[in-house]
Amino acid sequence: MCQLLGMNANVPTDICFSFTGFQRRGGKTDHHSDGFGIAFYEDKGYRLFNDAKPAIQSSIAKFVSQYPIQSCNVIAHIRKATQGEVQLVNCHPFVRELWGQYWIFAHNGDLGKKAFNPPIFYRPAGTTDSEHAFCALLDTLRVRFGETPPPLEELYRAIREITAFLAQRGTFNFVLSNGVYLFAHCSTHLHYVIRRYPFTQAQLIDEDIEVDFSHVTTPNDSVAVIATFPLTSNEQWIAFQSGDLKVFHQGQCVIGANPAA
Amino acid sequence: MCQLLGMNANVPTDICFSFTGFQRRGGKTDHHSDGFGIAFYEDKGYRLFNDAKPAIQSSIAKFVSQYPIQSCNVIAHIRKATQGEVQLVNCHPFVRELWGQYWIFAHNGDLGKKAFNPPIFYRPAGTTDSEHAFCALLDTLRVRFGETPPPLEELYRAIREITAFLAQRGTFNFVLSNGVYLFAHCSTHLHYVIRRYPFTQAQLIDEDIEVDFSHVTTPNDSVAVIATFPLTSNEQWIAFQSGDLKVFHQGQCVIGANPAA
Repeated sequence: MCQLLGMNANVPTDICFSFTGFQRRGGKTDHHSDGFGIAFYEDKGYRLFNDAKPAIQSSIAKFVSQYPIQSCNVIAHIRKATQGEVQLVNCHPFVRELWGQYWIFAHNGDLGKKAFNPPIFYRPAGTTDSEHAFCALLDTLRVRFGETPPPLEELYRAIREITAFLAQRGTFNFVLSNGVYLFAHCSTHLHYVIRRYPFTQAQLIDEDIEVDFSHVTTPNDSVAVIATFPLTSNEQWIAFQSGDLKVFHQGQCVIGANPAA
Repeated sequence: MCQLLGMNANVPTDICFSFTGFQRRGGKTDHHSDGFGIAFYEDKGYRLFNDAKPAIQSSIAKFVSQYPIQSCNVIAHIRKATQGEVQLVNCHPFVRELWGQYWIFAHNGDLGKKAFNPPIFYRPAGTTDSEHAFCALLDTLRVRFGETPPPLEELYRAIREITAFLAQRGTFNFVLSNGVYLFAHCSTHLHYVIRRYPFTQAQLIDEDIEVDFSHVTTPNDSVAVIATFPLTSNEQWIAFQSGDLKVFHQGQCVIGANPAA
């Protein structure tokens, strides 16, 4: 199974710590060895690092885990191929432009072999069900809202509706961002944690590394981390329920928060 | 002025040597210090490395110059901002999907402040004249050919026509690729060299580095390198004429070759 990682923060934050644990799952502590990818927004622009090699062997992944890229929105993915060959073109995350915004998407799950509706504006370059689903999602948004992005609540309802439709095909855990909001949907496995004041120590599950966030943060910082499975052993990770679509903004869960959070 | 670098080869080739000289122009031997970007195709996929920092200071540029990424099509750019702020979103090359192919574009020049036609399918995320021109080019191709890519000759004629139209606005040197063909247009300055058997030594202009390509190639290899100005002091670089649109494929100039080449 693939693994997802998302981060949404109110100040540019580096993801080295979380990515280090996540990367270990790409061929070392778990079996996700068919490539990886990570995208960092920087204002309206983005950086994308990807490799069809296992994350644990990839020089690019090593560079990313050591070089502190600061970002408010990050989407990462480790791939275990279910559909589509092991090729760079099939590595998540995928990027397309809609409304002059770069939309970035990574998926975990299998949406079956049934053909998708023919593409309208967005066509997959690769052969994964994931990229097809992403193109179908953006096509539907574009048909529905034309050239003007709707307010968040309306956008959320549309994405929830499209997601429910696509999720009928199979397992559809995903993280999606337009550089401002981060949407996360759970079919089977997805967890999140909000790191905020008072910051404490966190201990990675996949590597003997600890970080004390109180040393690298200010009292106003808020950072949401979303991952298939919890990355740390001593933080309060909250499990998504099946069918949950949550929206993160400025390091907070602004739509769909668990009432207990 | 910005600087362009393109490579088109018949076998995956690393661009470390040429990029090393090119990178030196990003703030060391020349004044192109407002960011850089480089895109590598790998079959139908791509990698994109970019930074709003000067190439000579950028850890990402350093990584790229040391890590031998093999590719048949590469597009790189060092930016000296004329329009658009110094931000990642304004760093070339730009990427959009058309016909299920990733199209990648980098521009050198200034196309003036006059407004572009309103976007149809492709909208700029940033504020450069370059990204506007790229979106206009792809919009026109899409309107003209619909959902089916035309044969190369027809595509060439269309790109030449759109380019001539856009070049009326100002200086429009560019390199453009869909992962198969590399198109290069010259308004003012563009040069290319074809490296093929018998391979010889090449000496970088911007750095005291020499490489003997005969040690790293086979007799069937062919590599076209396109750059704003020649990167080596002892190879036969051919100057584009103003208005030239050339197409490179499999390391050869297949349309628009200089008869003397």
